[in-house]
Amino acid sequence: MLAEIITIGDEILIGQIVDTNSAWMGTVLNEHGIKVHQITSVSDNREHILTALKEASNRVDIILITGGLGPTRDDITKHTICEYFNVKLRFDESVLADVTALFKRFGRDVTPINRKQAEIPENCTPLHNKNGTAPGMWFEESGKIYASMPGVPFEMKALMTDEVIPRLKKKFTLPVIIHKNVLTQGIGESVLSELISDWETSLAKEEIKLAYLPSSSMVRLRLSISGSDEKTMQEKIARKIEELKKIAGQHIFGYDDQTLEGIVGDLLKQRKQKVSTAESCTGGYIAHRITSVAGSSDYFTGAIISYSYDVKTTELGVSEEILKTHGAVSQPVVEQMAKAVRIKMKTDYSIAASGIAGPGGGTLDKPVGTVWIAIATPERVFSKCFQFGGNRERNIIVTGLTALNMLRKEILASE
Amino acid sequence: MLAEIITIGDEILIGQIVDTNSAWMGTVLNEHGIKVHQITSVSDNREHILTALKEASNRVDIILITGGLGPTRDDITKHTICEYFNVKLRFDESVLADVTALFKRFGRDVTPINRKQAEIPENCTPLHNKNGTAPGMWFEESGKIYASMPGVPFEMKALMTDEVIPRLKKKFTLPVIIHKNVLTQGIGESVLSELISDWETSLAKEEIKLAYLPSSSMVRLRLSISGSDEKTMQEKIARKIEELKKIAGQHIFGYDDQTLEGIVGDLLKQRKQKVSTAESCTGGYIAHRITSVAGSSDYFTGAIISYSYDVKTTELGVSEEILKTHGAVSQPVVEQMAKAVRIKMKTDYSIAASGIAGPGGGTLDKPVGTVWIAIATPERVFSKCFQFGGNRERNIIVTGLTALNMLRKEILASE
Repeated sequence: MLAEIITIGDEILIGQIVDTNSAWMGTVLNEHGIKVHQITSVSDNREHILTALKEASNRVDIILITGGLGPTRDDITKHTICEYFNVKLRFDESVLADVTALFKRFGRDVTPINRKQAEIPENCTPLHNKNGTAPGMWFEESGKIYASMPGVPFEMKALMTDEVIPRLKKKFTLPVIIHKNVLTQGIGESVLSELISDWETSLAKEEIKLAYLPSSSMVRLRLSISGSDEKTMQEKIARKIEELKKIAGQHIFGYDDQTLEGIVGDLLKQRKQKVSTAESCTGGYIAHRITSVAGSSDYFTGAIISYSYDVKTTELGVSEEILKTHGAVSQPVVEQMAKAVRIKMKTDYSIAASGIAGPGGGTLDKPVGTVWIAIATPERVFSKCFQFGGNRERNIIVTGLTALNMLRKEILASE
Repeated sequence: MLAEIITIGDEILIGQIVDTNSAWMGTVLNEHGIKVHQITSVSDNREHILTALKEASNRVDIILITGGLGPTRDDITKHTICEYFNVKLRFDESVLADVTALFKRFGRDVTPINRKQAEIPENCTPLHNKNGTAPGMWFEESGKIYASMPGVPFEMKALMTDEVIPRLKKKFTLPVIIHKNVLTQGIGESVLSELISDWETSLAKEEIKLAYLPSSSMVRLRLSISGSDEKTMQEKIARKIEELKKIAGQHIFGYDDQTLEGIVGDLLKQRKQKVSTAESCTGGYIAHRITSVAGSSDYFTGAIISYSYDVKTTELGVSEEILKTHGAVSQPVVEQMAKAVRIKMKTDYSIAASGIAGPGGGTLDKPVGTVWIAIATPERVFSKCFQFGGNRERNIIVTGLTALNMLRKEILASE
């Protein structure tokens, strides 16, 4: 079953608003076995909306429209829909009752401009919007479904969940679609794809589709399968993931919505252990990632951000001698940082990072993107040098993810 | 001049990725007088891409394509573009040189799969991508411009800024559009709009448009004017901003692309002064914001992230007595944190924050969102309590911005 999403409103086209609605709708539709064929963002313009509706109706069975339903002048969706279906507006008492009730909740009377929200196209079934004055609208015409919803995210979401999805499920027999995401870190898309090439080829037999979704130092592999027998499909996916783990297991850190900071946090919580950080080039980013997880105070005690030479010496006991001989971006410095912060913050583990984030500070020996990362544990300290070579923002992010993954592996290896 | 954006990739249609690229492109194109007519997201499907290109070329002069350029199998954009223009792929030595140089920077050899990135449609001018292996591609066919870019945001942004926009400016005579952004912090959209209501009404006479762009604890006011006489337009905008400063000056911290961390950094650099932070609820976020600015090592020496009671005591000299009596989220604690870190890190100023980011940890007295922020200067320490009341992520961000703005005001007031 194919759907298209049409979003109406200049604010998306001029970049004033990021279209998060469509992503949300895409996810929900997909979970119910409805494939989104296309997302089209058009302006608050009569002809443009008419063209988009016409084109979509030639391609798909379900057309979902958001935006352009407010009472103000630039919102012309309702009139244009009337023109599209060649119908008139009619006054709907049930919608007026909804609007009146909503205003009453805020202790206000319905204004004339809001009374107009109760005017809806003759051929539509109004969908009750409990969060706003603009009703959702449901149309069945020439075998196609059209649903129009306001663009305000929480109004749209409630209408989709309470009205549109249940009606679509009643109307159509929908297939089951299963997605599973495998999360990797520290291996590039192309190297990974060569490594798992044979495995990837074998997916076709099982009718599993694969997508590579790369972001800073991470590649997400998305496996998708559709059909009707959910149990068999789940088993197929699980079997293929087991195979993948044998080939590329050392690069996999998690699945689906997991994050490195969440996984590390869970490991520490389970083991009743704690972590701290000593950061130079990341300037607090690793601590920020760790503490972005709710409940992180259970396992994170603190950090020393040592941006200057002086703070490295006074707070983390890095000797001036070593700084002079090896420079701040070096193995002895980063290992001393990790050792010192672990003791100071009384934690089981610590992470330290020192590098050249850029754009300045690079040398021939140590170009921008050179980063040393160290992990200290109750037993040992070890470190590794990386060459990330990106821009400042990316170097900070990649250093953070790489460091968290090093810690994750070390915790697991210490069992 | 009209443009359309076509984004290619199933990940957008199934909602796995929010399409932030199009919003960014819409903003940038708009600033250069190019109107985005439509944004279309299509799947990694040959026919679908062909249809989208055909439809767009019937409507507009400029077609910008993102996504589908990786070296792996699910990326078919390049072949489909060849089919669309009825041309073949050719091997481009300059692109290979770019790819080789990029791999060399990482100390790696070019793999066969990455060599393929140098295969480009015969009729295209490659656009140098300094951040990734897939080149941008520029086409001029039948009076229309087509530009294809990778979907990775930072690669796309660099290609747009360095290659696509300059080429479009050369190719077309674009109207002059002037945008000026006024940045405010710490005042809500509705309160601000009441405060500046008369001024807002007066903009129409000058043909200046106003948009409110709110985000976490900030509201950006965008003034736009279009025409041909740039000097008069600049003067009109400047005059209106002077008027605005008289009404709402205390809420304005900067303009256009400025950031609070950048402004604070510039102020400190000019004065040859330094700053440090002591952070509890923000967990390193303020230090991260400060050090996200290139060159911040000139004025940031370090930070103590004191997440636990113990670290507040041992590293920042907060007495156990005070912690017991007042709790960690209190005026005496946050002021002691600021005092101690300023001395420890040998800086002129320091910022300290202690609060309840949530979702746990709230009490009747101190609900989630309660935050104390302190600033220490060479002369004094002062602090303020806020109730941000948001979710964890938002509370951390808003605390960071509010703290940086407090420091900014203090530095300016100390002149």
